[in-house]
Amino acid sequence: MKYPGGVKVKDNNYIEYGNRGMSLEEDINKANEYYRLINRAIIYKKPTPIQATKVVYNKGKGKLIAEGYFKTPSTTDYNGLYRGKYIDFEAKETKHKNYFPLTSIHTHQIEHIKKIIEHGGITFLIIRFSSLGKTFLVKGEDFITYLTNKPKSIPISFFNEYAKEIEESYNPRLKYLEVIDKLYFGGKDHETN
Amino acid sequence: MKYPGGVKVKDNNYIEYGNRGMSLEEDINKANEYYRLINRAIIYKKPTPIQATKVVYNKGKGKLIAEGYFKTPSTTDYNGLYRGKYIDFEAKETKHKNYFPLTSIHTHQIEHIKKIIEHGGITFLIIRFSSLGKTFLVKGEDFITYLTNKPKSIPISFFNEYAKEIEESYNPRLKYLEVIDKLYFGGKDHETN
Repeated sequence: MKYPGGVKVKDNNYIEYGNRGMSLEEDINKANEYYRLINRAIIYKKPTPIQATKVVYNKGKGKLIAEGYFKTPSTTDYNGLYRGKYIDFEAKETKHKNYFPLTSIHTHQIEHIKKIIEHGGITFLIIRFSSLGKTFLVKGEDFITYLTNKPKSIPISFFNEYAKEIEESYNPRLKYLEVIDKLYFGGKDHETN
Repeated sequence: MKYPGGVKVKDNNYIEYGNRGMSLEEDINKANEYYRLINRAIIYKKPTPIQATKVVYNKGKGKLIAEGYFKTPSTTDYNGLYRGKYIDFEAKETKHKNYFPLTSIHTHQIEHIKKIIEHGGITFLIIRFSSLGKTFLVKGEDFITYLTNKPKSIPISFFNEYAKEIEESYNPRLKYLEVIDKLYFGGKDHETN
């Protein structure tokens, strides 16, 4: 199954595929599958929230949605459990080279990130600059601090200075938990913990 | 919004409404809303996973689902963050008075509950016997232990002995975090922690 939910819905500002033929969402889904397979973390993408406005009954197939629409998510896209901790994050891609536009992060999601910090969870954003071939992980705390003066975008210089680039590797490509180990667990990896 | 997702899909064994006019799902959603409002816990129901098989573009309304179906969930319905801990649970209602049939809990969900225990999360089931007007919270650990001999159902006596009944109150009716405080936080409540 290539696309969970069968479709891929993105804002127009965001591309479906990165430079190397895979979307960020796909990379993260594959990483999460891999982490579950090796029993390292239990992290899932939440299903896309939809509002079914018409449901019909079909013999053999059961209940079918005959009309529905996609809703704006009020939380982040991914959450789960890693090393006994609650993990919660959002992932976005941009084609821009110099900045990440904040229009793609909804107000509800920003409030959600603040709440997760307040309640002791680990929360972050994974931002891919697809034209640069770089994917950053930025801590929720640093992201929220940067929003204080209500900017419309975040310059690449912020990511270079405050975020950690996620190194790409094979199978899965985006091993973002390595960065989590460094940022939240004092650099100790899973085994030496 | 009474029904998140606009529809309510239940196995035929499970009723939509409890004795007092509200479904268990509705009671839990209201409790979660209340807990978020008073900033006590950040817990959400995951959206129902759907597979959109036909998406059309509608001027003004944007992308519409013209055909889709409901998928079997591979995890539990609810998760979130409480007192710094990862919380994960499933909720089910039964009309039976003497037992809870296990057909309504999918194999994937049982595996998921085991994983959450293994990784240090708090996981449980909320089971309502609607004919009895009783709602129980059973720890994931006790539930999994009971499944060892592959029973087809769990008798009410198990719930009376090993589960905790959730007391009903006003606004919200189902304050299940009181039970979580007792079972997982040594009886200390939120404030005295």
